[in-house]
Amino acid sequence: MPSLERYQRKLDYSYAPGLFPTMEALLKRPETVRRVLVAEKAAGEGIEKLRALCAEKAIRMETADRVLRNLSGKENCFSAAVVRKENRPLTGDRHVVLHHISDHGNLGTIMRTALGLGIRDLAVIRPAADMWDPHVIRASMGAAFSLNLREYPDFDAYLEDCGDRPLYPFMLTSSVSLEEGSMRAGNRFALIFGNEGTGLPEAFAALGQPVRIPQTADVDSLNLSIAAAIGMYAFTRAVEQKARRKGENTDGE
Amino acid sequence: MPSLERYQRKLDYSYAPGLFPTMEALLKRPETVRRVLVAEKAAGEGIEKLRALCAEKAIRMETADRVLRNLSGKENCFSAAVVRKENRPLTGDRHVVLHHISDHGNLGTIMRTALGLGIRDLAVIRPAADMWDPHVIRASMGAAFSLNLREYPDFDAYLEDCGDRPLYPFMLTSSVSLEEGSMRAGNRFALIFGNEGTGLPEAFAALGQPVRIPQTADVDSLNLSIAAAIGMYAFTRAVEQKARRKGENTDGE
Repeated sequence: MPSLERYQRKLDYSYAPGLFPTMEALLKRPETVRRVLVAEKAAGEGIEKLRALCAEKAIRMETADRVLRNLSGKENCFSAAVVRKENRPLTGDRHVVLHHISDHGNLGTIMRTALGLGIRDLAVIRPAADMWDPHVIRASMGAAFSLNLREYPDFDAYLEDCGDRPLYPFMLTSSVSLEEGSMRAGNRFALIFGNEGTGLPEAFAALGQPVRIPQTADVDSLNLSIAAAIGMYAFTRAVEQKARRKGENTDGE
Repeated sequence: MPSLERYQRKLDYSYAPGLFPTMEALLKRPETVRRVLVAEKAAGEGIEKLRALCAEKAIRMETADRVLRNLSGKENCFSAAVVRKENRPLTGDRHVVLHHISDHGNLGTIMRTALGLGIRDLAVIRPAADMWDPHVIRASMGAAFSLNLREYPDFDAYLEDCGDRPLYPFMLTSSVSLEEGSMRAGNRFALIFGNEGTGLPEAFAALGQPVRIPQTADVDSLNLSIAAAIGMYAFTRAVEQKARRKGENTDGE
């Protein structure tokens, strides 16, 4: 195997830095793990668990202090998985679509929140932050390995692939509140969020049912990962509430 | 006035770094602003607006490149307000209480979210991240100057001051979902969140009505600022929904 390079977008592999993300890569997508890197001084229960998993799955484990130092920046990082990048098909009913998102931390946090709330398909519309950047994988706490992640060159490509579902662009200019919008929704939806600074272009108002998170005039807007979390919570709750009511009605028949 | 020091918790003043936080300090709490610092090369509309505000409020503006460099870390920072710290009384009905929170970014983001969702009182129970740290003020985007912020030495001190309201500790071990809990709530409440790594101590289960944010087994937990946002959204929505229904019923009488 050729020697490992500092991460760049054009590489066909990336790094999952940190014990937890390394473990998640090994548990959820072992077929994409090329090898596991550990620091020479790394020790402890976690590292032993990694070692056992690598042995079980016949994945090479090696010491690579220089690569780990480059990866970690300020924080310590005693292990990393080297993973093959994938552009996975979006197979679920519930999508989150991030249009021109630019912050690594937001992208990783949104991945983790989506997984926690039961949304397993996430599309990123380019130009955007690189969803395979090691900072994103780290911020996702390894959620990146449990989700279907797919990049699209533009929004039309997403529409062509998945546009047959109700679309909900999140826009501060919408007159329909998140509550109203989510109450009407079924279990098949795409929640669409725009860039941190500029939001979605006005043209998105003509797509599907735009919704607005009610907020006071005291803030300019909510942080993107916060807005996405509130949106995902409201939609997943509304769908489950409906399913429950339907169940209750059937019980009563 | 004595020369400015690098920020430390024991100082009776702090810094609001960045144009937007500086502006918020001047607009919302001008009486706490001791002076405004600008970089020698700072120029543009924003800086001119600061200059006009300072003139209007008779607040000294001075160049202080060294202090600004110390404040800004990696990011550029062309202005900062020097602000007197305050421990403000909590006067509102809706409280967010953060118990032993440790991350500056989370604390600032929670401030911004609270303000956006209409919760204006925030208590921090020590030991905890310093709510006056310049990183927190920056992450809050200046929301710190619109909220009532108060530190308590321990949770008992909070209870003594504000314990006469229904308490909702957020705990993964609770059997009551956020939805159920928030539906029963009135407009007077305290939402209590624990430390990023360890959550709330088990003893909090005996306080008020513990609630749980429903989440899949795929994640360990949600990020704290995400959990707090979802909690605040659910409670503020439930209260407003109730108020609306009451209004509708009254209309019908």
